[in-house]
Amino acid sequence: MSKLVVSTFTISLDGYAAGVGQRQDAPFGDGADHLHDWMTSTRAFHETHGLEGGVESPDDKWVRGAVGHFGATIMGRNMFSASRGPWEDLSWTGWWGDNPPYHNDVFVMTHHPRPSFELEGGNAFHFVDGSPAEVLELARAAAGGKDVHLAGGAATIRQYLAAGLVDDMRLAISPVLVGAGERLFDGLDTLPSAYRVAEQVSTAAATHVHIVRR
Amino acid sequence: MSKLVVSTFTISLDGYAAGVGQRQDAPFGDGADHLHDWMTSTRAFHETHGLEGGVESPDDKWVRGAVGHFGATIMGRNMFSASRGPWEDLSWTGWWGDNPPYHNDVFVMTHHPRPSFELEGGNAFHFVDGSPAEVLELARAAAGGKDVHLAGGAATIRQYLAAGLVDDMRLAISPVLVGAGERLFDGLDTLPSAYRVAEQVSTAAATHVHIVRR
Repeated sequence: MSKLVVSTFTISLDGYAAGVGQRQDAPFGDGADHLHDWMTSTRAFHETHGLEGGVESPDDKWVRGAVGHFGATIMGRNMFSASRGPWEDLSWTGWWGDNPPYHNDVFVMTHHPRPSFELEGGNAFHFVDGSPAEVLELARAAAGGKDVHLAGGAATIRQYLAAGLVDDMRLAISPVLVGAGERLFDGLDTLPSAYRVAEQVSTAAATHVHIVRR
Repeated sequence: MSKLVVSTFTISLDGYAAGVGQRQDAPFGDGADHLHDWMTSTRAFHETHGLEGGVESPDDKWVRGAVGHFGATIMGRNMFSASRGPWEDLSWTGWWGDNPPYHNDVFVMTHHPRPSFELEGGNAFHFVDGSPAEVLELARAAAGGKDVHLAGGAATIRQYLAAGLVDDMRLAISPVLVGAGERLFDGLDTLPSAYRVAEQVSTAAATHVHIVRR
Protein backbone atom coordinates (compact mmCIF):
# COMPACT_ATOMS: atom_id res chain seq x y z
CA MET A 1 0.00 0.00 0.00
CA SER A 2 1.21 3.49 -0.77
CA LYS A 3 2.61 5.35 2.22
CA LEU A 4 1.75 8.80 3.51
CA VAL A 5 5.09 10.58 3.80
CA VAL A 6 6.27 13.88 5.28
CA SER A 7 9.58 15.02 3.81
CA THR A 8 11.85 18.11 4.11
CA PHE A 9 9.36 19.65 6.51
CA THR A 10 11.39 22.11 8.58
CA ILE A 11 11.11 23.41 12.12
CA SER A 12 13.31 25.88 13.93
CA LEU A 13 15.41 24.92 16.92
CA ASP A 14 12.69 26.38 19.11
CA GLY A 15 10.06 24.28 17.38
CA TYR A 16 8.32 26.59 14.93
CA ALA A 17 7.40 25.65 11.36
CA ALA A 18 6.40 29.25 10.62
CA GLY A 19 6.47 32.62 12.35
CA VAL A 20 3.48 34.82 13.01
CA GLY A 21 1.90 37.05 10.36
CA GLN A 22 1.83 34.90 7.22
CA ARG A 23 1.03 37.12 4.24
CA GLN A 24 1.47 37.19 0.51
CA ASP A 25 5.06 38.51 0.63
CA ALA A 26 6.02 36.37 3.64
CA PRO A 27 4.68 32.82 3.19
CA PHE A 28 6.31 31.70 6.44
CA GLY A 29 5.53 34.82 8.45
CA ASP A 30 7.92 36.92 10.51
CA GLY A 31 11.31 35.74 11.69
CA ALA A 32 11.38 32.62 9.51
CA ASP A 33 13.43 34.03 6.62
CA HIS A 34 16.32 31.62 7.15
CA LEU A 35 14.31 28.58 8.19
CA HIS A 36 14.72 26.85 4.82
CA ASP A 37 18.23 28.03 3.91
CA TRP A 38 19.55 24.50 4.43
CA MET A 39 17.24 23.37 1.60
CA THR A 40 17.10 26.27 -0.84
CA SER A 41 20.90 26.49 -0.94
CA THR A 42 21.34 22.93 -2.23
CA ARG A 43 22.06 21.74 -5.76
CA ALA A 44 19.15 19.32 -5.40
CA PHE A 45 16.68 22.11 -4.67
CA HIS A 46 17.85 24.06 -7.69
CA GLU A 47 17.64 21.02 -9.97
CA THR A 48 14.19 20.04 -8.78
CA HIS A 49 12.94 23.59 -9.20
CA GLY A 50 14.41 24.03 -12.68
CA LEU A 51 17.01 26.53 -11.49
CA GLU A 52 20.72 26.87 -12.25
CA GLY A 53 23.26 26.69 -9.45
CA GLY A 54 23.09 25.58 -5.85
CA VAL A 55 25.78 24.01 -3.72
CA GLU A 56 26.46 20.27 -3.64
CA SER A 57 25.92 19.31 -0.04
CA PRO A 58 25.18 16.41 2.29
CA ASP A 59 21.69 17.91 2.49
CA ASP A 60 21.06 17.10 -1.20
CA LYS A 61 19.89 13.60 -0.42
CA TRP A 62 17.31 14.89 2.06
CA VAL A 63 15.90 17.17 -0.62
CA ARG A 64 15.90 14.48 -3.31
CA GLY A 65 13.97 12.21 -0.97
CA ALA A 66 11.12 14.72 -1.16
CA VAL A 67 10.61 15.01 -4.90
CA GLY A 68 9.96 13.00 -8.01
CA HIS A 69 8.51 9.81 -6.63
CA PHE A 70 5.19 10.81 -5.12
CA GLY A 71 1.91 10.14 -6.86
CA ALA A 72 -0.12 12.84 -5.13
CA THR A 73 0.21 15.66 -2.61
CA ILE A 74 -1.87 16.81 0.36
CA MET A 75 -1.55 20.27 1.86
CA GLY A 76 -3.54 22.58 4.11
CA ARG A 77 -5.30 25.71 2.94
CA ASN A 78 -2.76 27.87 4.81
CA MET A 79 0.11 26.30 2.92
CA PHE A 80 -1.58 27.15 -0.38
CA SER A 81 -2.58 30.71 0.42
CA ALA A 82 -2.23 33.55 2.90
CA SER A 83 -5.94 34.28 2.51
CA ARG A 84 -8.53 32.76 4.84
CA GLY A 85 -12.22 32.01 4.53
CA PRO A 86 -14.15 31.95 1.22
CA TRP A 87 -12.00 32.27 -1.90
CA GLU A 88 -12.14 35.85 -3.14
CA ASP A 89 -9.19 35.97 -5.52
CA LEU A 90 -9.26 33.00 -7.90
CA SER A 91 -6.21 34.36 -9.70
CA TRP A 92 -4.11 33.12 -6.77
CA THR A 93 -2.69 29.73 -7.79
CA GLY A 94 -0.18 29.23 -4.98
CA TRP A 95 3.32 30.47 -4.15
CA TRP A 96 5.13 28.34 -6.70
CA GLY A 97 4.73 30.05 -10.06
CA ASP A 98 3.60 28.42 -13.32
CA ASN A 99 5.34 25.13 -12.70
CA PRO A 100 5.15 24.10 -9.04
CA PRO A 101 7.52 21.41 -7.73
CA TYR A 102 4.78 18.81 -7.09
CA HIS A 103 4.07 17.47 -10.60
CA ASN A 104 1.04 15.50 -9.50
CA ASP A 105 -2.48 15.99 -8.12
CA VAL A 106 -2.37 18.34 -5.15
CA PHE A 107 -5.29 18.10 -2.72
CA VAL A 108 -5.77 21.32 -0.75
CA MET A 109 -7.81 20.81 2.42
CA THR A 110 -10.39 23.57 2.83
CA HIS A 111 -13.98 24.02 3.94
CA HIS A 112 -14.50 26.50 1.11
CA PRO A 113 -15.25 25.11 -2.36
CA ARG A 114 -13.21 26.23 -5.35
CA PRO A 115 -12.86 24.71 -8.85
CA SER A 116 -9.83 22.57 -9.63
CA PHE A 117 -7.20 24.04 -11.96
CA GLU A 118 -4.12 22.81 -13.76
CA LEU A 119 -0.67 24.37 -14.09
CA GLU A 120 2.38 23.30 -16.08
CA GLY A 121 4.37 20.17 -15.34
CA GLY A 122 1.47 17.92 -14.46
CA ASN A 123 0.40 20.02 -11.48
CA ALA A 124 -3.34 19.92 -10.81
CA PHE A 125 -4.86 21.53 -7.70
CA HIS A 126 -8.07 20.21 -6.15
CA PHE A 127 -9.90 21.80 -3.22
CA VAL A 128 -11.47 19.26 -0.92
CA ASP A 129 -13.48 19.37 2.28
CA GLY A 130 -13.19 16.19 4.31
CA SER A 131 -11.56 14.44 7.23
CA PRO A 132 -7.85 13.62 6.99
CA ALA A 133 -8.76 9.98 6.24
CA GLU A 134 -11.21 10.98 3.49
CA VAL A 135 -8.73 13.30 1.80
CA LEU A 136 -6.04 10.64 2.05
CA GLU A 137 -8.37 8.23 0.29
CA LEU A 138 -8.81 10.71 -2.57
CA ALA A 139 -5.07 11.27 -2.79
CA ARG A 140 -4.31 7.55 -2.77
CA ALA A 141 -6.78 7.00 -5.58
CA ALA A 142 -4.97 9.66 -7.62
CA ALA A 143 -1.50 8.38 -6.74
CA GLY A 144 -1.72 5.17 -8.75
CA GLY A 145 0.09 3.06 -6.20
CA LYS A 146 2.82 5.61 -5.50
CA ASP A 147 3.37 7.21 -2.09
CA VAL A 148 1.42 10.32 -1.10
CA HIS A 149 3.32 13.41 0.01
CA LEU A 150 1.92 15.26 3.03
CA ALA A 151 3.50 18.62 2.30
CA GLY A 152 2.27 20.73 5.23
CA GLY A 153 1.73 23.05 6.94
CA ALA A 154 2.14 22.29 10.58
CA ALA A 155 -1.57 22.23 11.45
CA THR A 156 -2.31 19.78 8.65
CA ILE A 157 0.54 17.44 9.58
CA ARG A 158 -0.59 17.57 13.22
CA GLN A 159 -4.07 16.41 12.18
CA TYR A 160 -2.63 13.46 10.27
CA LEU A 161 -0.24 12.56 13.09
CA ALA A 162 -3.03 12.69 15.66
CA ALA A 163 -5.09 10.37 13.44
CA GLY A 164 -2.12 7.99 13.14
CA LEU A 165 -2.19 8.26 9.34
CA VAL A 166 1.41 9.34 8.72
CA ASP A 167 3.65 6.40 7.79
CA ASP A 168 7.02 8.09 7.55
CA MET A 169 8.28 11.56 8.45
CA ARG A 170 11.57 13.25 7.61
CA LEU A 171 11.98 16.55 9.38
CA ALA A 172 14.75 19.08 9.35
CA ILE A 173 15.64 21.13 12.42
CA SER A 174 17.13 24.38 11.25
CA PRO A 175 19.69 26.09 13.52
CA VAL A 176 17.63 29.25 13.78
CA LEU A 177 15.37 30.73 16.45
CA VAL A 178 11.95 31.99 15.31
CA GLY A 179 10.54 32.97 18.71
CA ALA A 180 6.81 32.60 18.08
CA GLY A 181 4.45 31.10 15.52
CA GLU A 182 3.09 27.78 14.39
CA ARG A 183 4.44 24.67 16.12
CA LEU A 184 4.55 21.22 14.57
CA PHE A 185 4.61 19.39 17.90
CA ASP A 186 1.65 20.64 19.87
CA GLY A 187 -1.19 18.75 21.48
CA LEU A 188 0.23 15.44 20.23
CA ASP A 189 0.39 13.59 23.53
CA THR A 190 -0.32 10.21 21.93
CA LEU A 191 2.58 10.61 19.50
CA PRO A 192 5.21 8.70 21.55
CA SER A 193 3.05 5.60 21.75
CA ALA A 194 2.67 5.44 17.96
CA TYR A 195 5.95 6.78 16.60
CA ARG A 196 9.68 6.66 17.35
CA VAL A 197 12.79 8.45 16.13
CA ALA A 198 14.75 6.10 13.87
CA GLU A 199 17.58 8.49 13.00
CA GLN A 200 18.83 11.95 13.93
CA VAL A 201 21.86 13.27 12.04
CA SER A 202 23.35 16.72 11.52
CA THR A 203 24.94 18.38 8.56
CA ALA A 204 26.52 21.82 8.76
CA ALA A 205 23.17 23.30 7.77
CA ALA A 206 20.49 21.28 9.57
CA THR A 207 19.66 18.30 11.73
CA HIS A 208 17.71 15.66 9.84
CA VAL A 209 15.31 13.46 11.75
CA HIS A 210 13.57 10.33 10.53
CA ILE A 211 10.41 9.38 12.42
CA VAL A 212 8.70 6.05 11.81
CA ARG A 213 5.87 4.02 13.24
CA ARG A 214 6.65 1.88 16.30
CA MET B 1 32.97 38.94 34.46
CA SER B 2 31.76 35.45 35.23
CA LYS B 3 29.24 34.09 32.73
CA LEU B 4 25.85 32.55 33.34
CA VAL B 5 25.93 29.23 31.52
CA VAL B 6 23.37 26.54 30.66
CA SER B 7 24.99 23.19 29.92
CA THR B 8 23.80 19.62 29.17
CA PHE B 9 20.20 20.80 29.47
CA THR B 10 18.17 18.34 27.40
CA ILE B 11 14.95 18.62 25.43
CA SER B 12 13.13 15.97 23.45
CA LEU B 13 12.72 16.18 19.70
CA ASP B 14 9.23 17.52 20.31
CA GLY B 15 10.58 20.20 22.63
CA TYR B 16 9.93 18.95 26.15
CA ALA B 17 12.43 19.18 29.01
CA ALA B 18 10.17 17.04 31.20
CA GLY B 19 6.94 15.10 30.90
CA VAL B 20 3.83 15.64 32.97
CA GLY B 21 3.43 14.31 36.51
CA GLN B 22 6.79 14.97 38.16
CA ARG B 23 6.95 13.04 41.45
CA GLN B 24 9.49 11.63 43.82
CA ASP B 25 10.07 8.44 41.84
CA ALA B 26 9.91 10.22 38.46
CA PRO B 27 11.92 13.46 38.60
CA PHE B 28 11.23 14.16 34.93
CA GLY B 29 7.61 13.01 34.91
CA ASP B 30 5.98 10.57 32.52
CA GLY B 31 7.41 9.60 29.16
CA ALA B 32 10.83 11.13 29.77
CA ASP B 33 12.66 7.99 30.93
CA HIS B 34 15.09 8.01 28.00
CA LEU B 35 15.51 11.76 27.67
CA HIS B 36 18.95 11.76 29.32
CA ASP B 37 20.26 8.41 28.07
CA TRP B 38 22.76 10.23 25.83
CA MET B 39 24.32 11.70 29.00
CA THR B 40 23.96 9.02 31.65
CA SER B 41 25.49 6.40 29.36
CA THR B 42 28.78 8.28 28.98
CA ARG B 43 32.11 7.65 30.68
CA ALA B 44 32.20 11.34 31.60
CA PHE B 45 28.88 11.14 33.46
CA HIS B 46 30.07 8.13 35.41
CA GLU B 47 33.37 9.78 36.31
CA THR B 48 31.79 13.02 37.40
CA HIS B 49 29.26 11.17 39.52
CA GLY B 50 31.83 8.92 41.19
CA LEU B 51 30.56 5.81 39.38
CA GLU B 52 32.42 2.99 37.65
CA GLY B 53 31.82 2.28 33.96
CA GLY B 54 30.15 4.24 31.21
CA VAL B 55 30.95 4.25 27.52
CA GLU B 56 33.58 6.49 25.92
CA SER B 57 31.67 8.57 23.45
CA PRO B 58 31.71 11.79 21.44
CA ASP B 59 29.14 12.99 23.96
CA ASP B 60 31.74 12.92 26.75
CA LYS B 61 33.00 16.40 25.95
CA TRP B 62 29.49 17.84 26.20
CA VAL B 63 29.13 16.32 29.67
CA ARG B 64 32.58 17.49 30.82
CA GLY B 65 31.71 21.00 29.75
CA ALA B 66 29.02 20.99 32.40
CA VAL B 67 31.00 20.03 35.48
CA GLY B 68 34.03 20.99 37.55
CA HIS B 69 34.58 24.57 36.56
CA PHE B 70 31.54 26.43 37.88
CA GLY B 71 31.70 28.52 41.03
CA ALA B 72 27.99 28.40 41.87
CA THR B 73 24.72 26.88 40.67
CA ILE B 74 21.20 28.24 40.22
CA MET B 75 18.16 26.01 39.94
CA GLY B 76 14.39 26.30 40.27
CA ARG B 77 12.41 24.85 43.13
CA ASN B 78 10.89 22.22 40.81
CA MET B 79 14.33 20.95 39.87
CA PHE B 80 15.16 20.49 43.54
CA SER B 81 11.96 18.81 44.63
CA ALA B 82 8.69 17.28 43.45
CA SER B 83 6.90 19.03 46.32
CA ARG B 84 5.30 22.44 45.87
CA GLY B 85 4.40 25.27 48.25
CA PRO B 86 5.75 25.59 51.82
CA TRP B 87 8.45 23.06 52.76
CA GLU B 88 6.89 20.26 54.75
CA ASP B 89 9.60 17.60 54.61
CA LEU B 90 13.00 19.07 55.48
CA SER B 91 14.57 15.63 55.22
CA TRP B 92 14.37 16.02 51.41
CA THR B 93 17.78 17.22 50.27
CA GLY B 94 17.38 16.79 46.51
CA TRP B 95 17.55 13.91 44.03
CA TRP B 96 21.31 13.55 44.07
CA GLY B 97 22.18 11.59 47.24
CA ASP B 98 24.83 12.54 49.81
CA ASN B 99 27.31 13.94 47.30
CA PRO B 100 25.53 15.87 44.52
CA PRO B 101 27.41 16.63 41.30
CA TYR B 102 27.50 20.43 41.84
CA HIS B 103 30.30 20.83 44.41
CA ASN B 104 29.57 24.48 45.01
CA ASP B 105 26.90 26.79 46.40
CA VAL B 106 23.52 25.91 44.90
CA PHE B 107 20.88 28.63 44.96
CA VAL B 108 17.36 27.21 44.81
CA MET B 109 14.80 29.81 43.71
CA THR B 110 11.67 29.61 45.85
CA HIS B 111 9.15 31.90 47.47
CA HIS B 112 9.16 29.67 50.55
CA PRO B 113 11.95 30.13 53.10
CA ARG B 114 14.02 27.18 54.25
CA PRO B 115 17.37 27.03 56.08
CA SER B 116 20.53 26.36 54.08
CA PHE B 117 22.21 22.97 54.48
CA GLU B 118 25.45 21.34 53.43
CA LEU B 119 26.11 17.93 51.93
CA GLU B 120 29.38 16.17 51.07
CA GLY B 121 31.75 17.34 48.38
CA GLY B 122 31.40 21.07 48.97
CA ASN B 123 27.69 21.11 48.12
CA ALA B 124 25.73 23.79 50.00
CA PHE B 125 22.07 24.49 49.22
CA HIS B 126 20.56 27.92 49.80
CA PHE B 127 16.89 28.82 49.35
CA VAL B 128 16.37 32.29 47.97
CA ASP B 129 13.40 34.41 47.02
CA GLY B 130 14.27 37.08 44.48
CA SER B 131 14.21 38.12 40.85
CA PRO B 132 16.47 36.27 38.42
CA ALA B 133 18.89 39.23 38.47
CA GLU B 134 18.97 39.30 42.28
CA VAL B 135 19.60 35.56 42.56
CA LEU B 136 22.30 35.81 39.90
CA GLU B 137 23.99 38.51 41.97
CA LEU B 138 24.05 36.19 45.00
CA ALA B 139 25.40 33.33 42.92
CA ARG B 140 28.10 35.52 41.33
CA ALA B 141 29.23 36.69 44.78
CA ALA B 142 29.57 33.03 45.82
CA ALA B 143 31.31 31.97 42.61
CA GLY B 144 34.58 33.80 43.29
CA GLY B 145 35.04 34.90 39.69
CA LYS B 146 34.11 31.54 38.16
CA ASP B 147 31.14 31.04 35.85
CA VAL B 148 27.70 30.35 37.28
CA HIS B 149 25.79 27.24 36.16
CA LEU B 150 22.09 27.70 35.44
CA ALA B 151 21.07 24.08 35.92
CA GLY B 152 17.32 24.20 35.23
CA GLY B 153 14.50 23.40 35.03
CA ALA B 154 12.85 24.72 31.94
CA ALA B 155 10.75 27.39 33.69
CA THR B 156 13.80 28.81 35.45
CA ILE B 157 15.91 28.91 32.28
CA ARG B 158 13.01 30.59 30.46
CA GLN B 159 12.95 33.35 33.10
CA TYR B 160 16.67 33.98 32.68
CA LEU B 161 16.46 33.90 28.88
CA ALA B 162 13.54 36.34 28.89
CA ALA B 163 15.58 38.67 31.11
CA GLY B 164 18.56 38.38 28.75
CA LEU B 165 20.78 37.14 31.56
CA VAL B 166 22.01 33.87 30.01
CA ASP B 167 25.44 34.26 28.38
CA ASP B 168 25.95 30.84 26.89
CA MET B 169 23.67 27.82 26.45
CA ARG B 170 24.54 24.27 25.43
CA LEU B 171 21.45 22.16 24.85
CA ALA B 172 21.04 18.57 23.82
CA ILE B 173 18.13 17.43 21.67
CA SER B 174 17.44 13.82 22.47
CA PRO B 175 15.97 11.61 19.72
CA VAL B 176 12.90 10.77 21.74
CA LEU B 177 9.29 11.93 21.74
CA VAL B 178 7.76 12.89 25.09
CA GLY B 179 4.37 14.09 23.86
CA ALA B 180 3.42 16.55 26.60
CA GLY B 181 5.02 18.39 29.48
CA GLU B 182 7.30 21.30 30.22
CA ARG B 183 8.74 23.15 27.22
CA LEU B 184 12.00 25.08 27.26
CA PHE B 185 11.06 27.30 24.32
CA ASP B 186 7.73 28.88 25.18
CA GLY B 187 6.72 32.51 25.33
CA LEU B 188 10.23 33.60 24.34
CA ASP B 189 9.37 35.76 21.36
CA THR B 190 12.26 38.16 21.97
CA LEU B 191 14.80 35.31 21.96
CA PRO B 192 15.82 35.59 18.26
CA SER B 193 16.77 39.25 18.63
CA ALA B 194 19.13 38.51 21.52
CA TYR B 195 20.54 35.05 20.75
CA ARG B 196 21.71 32.97 17.80
CA VAL B 197 22.67 29.35 17.19
CA ALA B 198 26.46 29.13 16.88
CA GLU B 199 26.68 25.36 16.37
CA GLN B 200 24.42 22.36 15.91
CA VAL B 201 26.08 18.94 15.69
CA SER B 202 24.83 15.38 16.10
CA THR B 203 26.32 12.33 17.68
CA ALA B 204 24.66 8.91 17.51
CA ALA B 205 22.92 9.73 20.79
CA ALA B 206 21.93 13.40 20.64
CA THR B 207 22.11 16.68 18.77
CA HIS B 208 24.17 19.26 20.60
CA VAL B 209 23.34 22.91 20.15
CA HIS B 210 25.38 25.90 21.23
CA ILE B 211 23.44 29.13 21.64
CA VAL B 212 25.25 32.43 22.20
CA ARG B 213 24.42 36.11 22.41
CA ARG B 214 24.18 38.01 19.13
